[in-house]
This record gives sequence, C-alpha cells and structure tokens, in this order.
Amino acid sequence: MARVVVAVMPKPEILDPQGKAVLGALPRLGFGGVTDVRQGKRFELEVEGDVTPDVLAEVEKMAETLLSNPVIENYVVSVEQVEQADQ
Amino acid sequence: MARVVVAVMPKPEILDPQGKAVLGALPRLGFGGVTDVRQGKRFELEVEGDVTPDVLAEVEKMAETLLSNPVIENYVVSVEQVEQADQ
Repeated sequence: MARVVVAVMPKPEILDPQGKAVLGALPRLGFGGVTDVRQGKRFELEVEGDVTPDVLAEVEKMAETLLSNPVIENYVVSVEQVEQADQ
Repeated sequence: MARVVVAVMPKPEILDPQGKAVLGALPRLGFGGVTDVRQGKRFELEVEGDVTPDVLAEVEKMAETLLSNPVIENYVVSVEQVEQADQ
C-alpha cells in the first residue's frame, strides 16, 4: 500500500479570500511575523501496490481532471511513505 | 523569506464525505487502483526572516488554534524551500 499526495493551490495571480481571511485573523489572535497566507487543498490517495511511473501518470491525470481546476489552480503530485503502524 | 506549510487532514476515525465523493467519482471517470481518498487543507504561510524553532513553535500554535480543529483534524507543520524565482 502506498500513498500519493496531491497538493492543490490557487495560482499566484488568483485572489484567495480564504487565505486572506486567515491572514487577517492572525494579528487579532496575537500572532505576528506572517506576511502572506494561501489556502489550498490536500488529497491523500491510497493506491494498490507500488507507485510506478504509470501510477503517477494516472494520478497526474486525476489531479488535472477531478482534483483541481487547472484554470485557477496548480497541483503537485508527490509520494509519501506510509508506516506499517498506519494501516 | 521562508515558507512554512501546514497540512490539515481529518483524523482517521472521522468520516470524510469530500474524500468519499472523490473516491466515488474516480471509477466513473475511468480511473482505477485507488482504494481510499482523504481530503484535507493545505496552508502556505510566508514568514519574515528565517524559520527558527521559535517561529515553528508559533506556527504550531496557529495550526492548533486557527488552522485546524484539533477535535476532528490532525496537522503537520513543515518547512518548504522557496526559490528566488517564485518571489
């Protein structure tokens, strides 16, 4: 069992009201030192067997067609080690 | 300028209807081989200066009080290298 992570973030030129809301809330809660916040999505996909280049290509297609909106979002696909204890 | 990433995921014992919706949509789109999907949030925080242990402790507090709901979500704080070209 392997885990593939797809991180989906709004493109830099796209407004991100959720991130702006978090950025505005931080000083009210007494937190400083943060100059920008962007909020996106994270998908953890459990895939059968090993993560081969074929599997990664398939996940790239999923990211492009279902998990993200390529007009306003970028995505990054990465592989994560799953510990035995997690299963 | 440094970037700190906070990944927020629903706890394993918590139902995740968004992840289930994605899992259900995959076979309809012709994708196979995925046995589970969990959907969470990803925050990218731009912080001033270097990422010291103090800054990371502060971000941990932000993650616990603002970015996640610790009753139903887990979070992981990590540091990401920002390339000069990104800025």
